[in-house]
Amino acid sequence: MAKSILITGGARSGKSRIAEGWALDLGDAPIYIATGQPFDAEMEARIAAHQARRGPEWTTVQAPLDLVTALQKSDGQGPRLVDCLTLWLSNLMHHEMDWQQAAVALAEALATQHSPTIFVTNEVGLGIVPENALARAFRDAQGALNQRLAAAVDEVYLAVAGYPMKVKPNGS
Amino acid sequence: MAKSILITGGARSGKSRIAEGWALDLGDAPIYIATGQPFDAEMEARIAAHQARRGPEWTTVQAPLDLVTALQKSDGQGPRLVDCLTLWLSNLMHHEMDWQQAAVALAEALATQHSPTIFVTNEVGLGIVPENALARAFRDAQGALNQRLAAAVDEVYLAVAGYPMKVKPNGS
Amino acid sequence: MAKSILITGGARSGKSRIAEGWALDLGDAPIYIATGQPFDAEMEARIAAHQARRGPEWTTVQAPLDLVTALQKSDGQGPRLVDCLTLWLSNLMHHEMDWQQAAVALAEALATQHSPTIFVTNEVGLGIVPENALARAFRDAQGALNQRLAAAVDEVYLAVAGYPMKVKPNGS
Repeated sequence: MAKSILITGGARSGKSRIAEGWALDLGDAPIYIATGQPFDAEMEARIAAHQARRGPEWTTVQAPLDLVTALQKSDGQGPRLVDCLTLWLSNLMHHEMDWQQAAVALAEALATQHSPTIFVTNEVGLGIVPENALARAFRDAQGALNQRLAAAVDEVYLAVAGYPMKVKPNGS
Repeated sequence: MAKSILITGGARSGKSRIAEGWALDLGDAPIYIATGQPFDAEMEARIAAHQARRGPEWTTVQAPLDLVTALQKSDGQGPRLVDCLTLWLSNLMHHEMDWQQAAVALAEALATQHSPTIFVTNEVGLGIVPENALARAFRDAQGALNQRLAAAVDEVYLAVAGYPMKVKPNGS
Repeated sequence: MAKSILITGGARSGKSRIAEGWALDLGDAPIYIATGQPFDAEMEARIAAHQARRGPEWTTVQAPLDLVTALQKSDGQGPRLVDCLTLWLSNLMHHEMDWQQAAVALAEALATQHSPTIFVTNEVGLGIVPENALARAFRDAQGALNQRLAAAVDEVYLAVAGYPMKVKPNGS
């Protein structure tokens, strides 16, 4: 199994930028697996800013729902950066798909990969309990998904103010 | 004074599961001190899922308000897992009791315990300032309570994606 | 360039108290650079509580907008504690000033300082995406500002339950 990393963090914590640096360290021709589907101008601007930051050495693949196939098709071609699991979860829930089964399948698919894989995800559970029931369900799902993937990867990091803090493995 | 630990983290960060593992490491017959009082179906389901995960070696004690008595009565019988300080604080505030005095008394009670004690709590102050004044008051109280207990215990951890990061003691 | 530190964290995580301890360690006559402008009774009470906690060895300077001038005027007089960047950002945005340019200028000003500088800031991006567009814009700006300053200082810490976790430099 090739190296796998999960980096989590809050909004604008620098996690995508850190992950991009790691992908370039892991291979000359990294593959960006984008889960985002722009629904409004705000998200379009955010995706465009991310794309502009990456250089011409990147190949971009769109995978809003089927990450397992995206990993299998790109395996052997270079390190993959999946950005991000939060939009993927949001897409699965929007289409009323079984995100728990999808998370298990994704974690299992990792075991057979020959190219490195880096996942970017978000911490969304460190504020006051949301009044909105859907928001509560989403933050519970996001936490469960993060735990599932964290257990499957080699290394986990928490991004804070642009720097990665090591979560797994550690000495505690 | 027996060993004492505080583990904090966001929703679905794995903190209860980590704490349960530690309690089993600290003794064969751990005592689960539950602060939760189910007010609705959502909380009932959450409590039931936690109970189902724990095995028959656990004894469960209900202590929605008087944690000091629960610790004193169970002392000498095995490691105690208090899950969680957030529901305890919520109960105290709901009954308009003096949570600051209760926090001081709880921290002081720790010093005379002969069995280990593990506290689970939540980080709720890392989002945008809530518009709701009660939510702001709660997150301030939760932060103050966490600081009070963290100062009283031997070790503090932050749970992220199912893994504990050491907060206290550290080398910084 | 004198030593510079950024400490970030959630509400009531103990970051101001930790930073005050560091400032006293760095010099006998620390300077408190306050960015807060009390708009309501809640904020007035919070500022008063902070002031009461600090002792007579402190000098207080008000700098709601122009931090660069406050740093330059106080340079050579003792360690400076800027508390906090979140209120500063809020003030800049309230006055519709260019916070990005201000952040660059502040980061650049650090390079010429002869006295130590400690910045306190907040993590606000670890909850569910706010429904309010202004809140979303603020948390994005806060995250970007934190990254900018974190890159410019020598050390970065995350405060959790009253204890600092080292973010930069680290071994990861």
